[in-house]
Amino acid sequence: MSSSLEVIYSVRVEFGDCDPAGIVWFPNFFRWIDAASRHFFMQCGVPRWEETAKTLGVIGTPLVDTHTRFVASASYGDELSIATRVAEWRHKSFVQAYRVMRGETLILECEEVRIFGGRREDGSLCALPVPAEIARLCGREV
Amino acid sequence: MSSSLEVIYSVRVEFGDCDPAGIVWFPNFFRWIDAASRHFFMQCGVPRWEETAKTLGVIGTPLVDTHTRFVASASYGDELSIATRVAEWRHKSFVQAYRVMRGETLILECEEVRIFGGRREDGSLCALPVPAEIARLCGREV
Amino acid sequence: MSSSLEVIYSVRVEFGDCDPAGIVWFPNFFRWIDAASRHFFMQCGVPRWEETAKTLGVIGTPLVDTHTRFVASASYGDELSIATRVAEWRHKSFVQAYRVMRGETLILECEEVRIFGGRREDGSLCALPVPAEIARLCGREV
Amino acid sequence: MSSSLEVIYSVRVEFGDCDPAGIVWFPNFFRWIDAASRHFFMQCGVPRWEETAKTLGVIGTPLVDTHTRFVASASYGDELSIATRVAEWRHKSFVQAYRVMRGETLILECEEVRIFGGRREDGSLCALPVPAEIARLCGREV
Repeated sequence: MSSSLEVIYSVRVEFGDCDPAGIVWFPNFFRWIDAASRHFFMQCGVPRWEETAKTLGVIGTPLVDTHTRFVASASYGDELSIATRVAEWRHKSFVQAYRVMRGETLILECEEVRIFGGRREDGSLCALPVPAEIARLCGREV
Repeated sequence: MSSSLEVIYSVRVEFGDCDPAGIVWFPNFFRWIDAASRHFFMQCGVPRWEETAKTLGVIGTPLVDTHTRFVASASYGDELSIATRVAEWRHKSFVQAYRVMRGETLILECEEVRIFGGRREDGSLCALPVPAEIARLCGREV
Repeated sequence: MSSSLEVIYSVRVEFGDCDPAGIVWFPNFFRWIDAASRHFFMQCGVPRWEETAKTLGVIGTPLVDTHTRFVASASYGDELSIATRVAEWRHKSFVQAYRVMRGETLILECEEVRIFGGRREDGSLCALPVPAEIARLCGREV
Repeated sequence: MSSSLEVIYSVRVEFGDCDPAGIVWFPNFFRWIDAASRHFFMQCGVPRWEETAKTLGVIGTPLVDTHTRFVASASYGDELSIATRVAEWRHKSFVQAYRVMRGETLILECEEVRIFGGRREDGSLCALPVPAEIARLCGREV
């Protein structure tokens, strides 16, 4: 089961995002990817995690696995767009996929496995079954 | 009322902390200063904020004012030490002061006003009177 | 000599910009203020620092002094606007001033002293006299 | 051809490294991994990139691919150690591998492909053949 929904998140690269080689220091890409992930859910109409914590027990979408392929570098002044979608819905996790572009130039591709995180009674994190209403909002095709 | 206690926090400057000019990008200095602030309290024996939230209602030490004078730049490979003390205890705030050094070279001086933050019933932040036991642990001279 | 020019830089606060207390971790404000500083010069038509390095010897605008007063906290989902201007032109430095707002709510005010940085023959940084053409682009009133 | 050399980089997790869920915000792990990568080369006796830029044309080790598996979360106050090694030397790239531990607990595993980056005449980045002297310093087994 995949999704056809794709949401764009746009980023201006700033001077301070770049390293002494003059290019984006790569951890900043993960900063933007995380924002794009959250932006995807917001655009789909999923409420803030404080809300879902109360209604569904979901406190966020912790990352389990991430695989990123860097194709071209970027620098300050660049305008990037991050196309985000859910590539796969699983029972207790989902695959979120990103393409970071500068115009027609592919900068990087990233594929993540995330879970819907809840808390056990002792406060520790656990993976909840993907909530049906969230998957539906995000365009899961049944 | 001031304090004689001074605590040192040490920092290695990394490649990614530097900008395209090859020197530390200044927001990173505030990252380290905030860590030095917290380190000061830990070294003085003040428990984690989760603990003090339960015992004293203190959830942390939000910043109210900061004034920083940059004297020399730093770059990756540098080892910095941040000497931290409380310069003044007030009724509902305190002044925390920092000197960032590389060996004998002064990099910057910073003086902050912070509060002991609590939460009002509606969840908003408020300044609590400085808890006597915390000030005592931190060496307040009466 | 001051400036009447004011430029707005807008910021979306992201989940990862916030700390365990749920509010913006303050070094992130300095990240945005630095971007607003650079944005101001770009909007005024000042070229990239690589360009000015060749034409004027200016490699950037290093910070000498910053004073910030935090008035209200912000959290993820907030849209902030940073109004930026040059409050004063001096011979070898200038004062850049910022007001960070969330709608009508003042979040913080910041006043910085910056220099136009050049390099000495040994590679070290030095303050250059404020280039007349940059000040003119930025609306200096004579 | 692999390496038996392993270098440990240690990290203190700070309050500001954590997000509103109270755990390390994942881009910070990449900040530390990048520092561990550089630390590995320094401990092996590889000079600063400014040096190697002059002697070998190597300006750094840009990332081409990274795959990370997150096993457990971490929070402020934690002391992490990052065991770093080169898992494989290729002709124009190498695989650098990391295990982030908190005591006996595995936090994450990461495997990266990096290159030794040089600059073409037009200033763009390119992959250089792995310099023999660097690989030797880093314990390449022939």
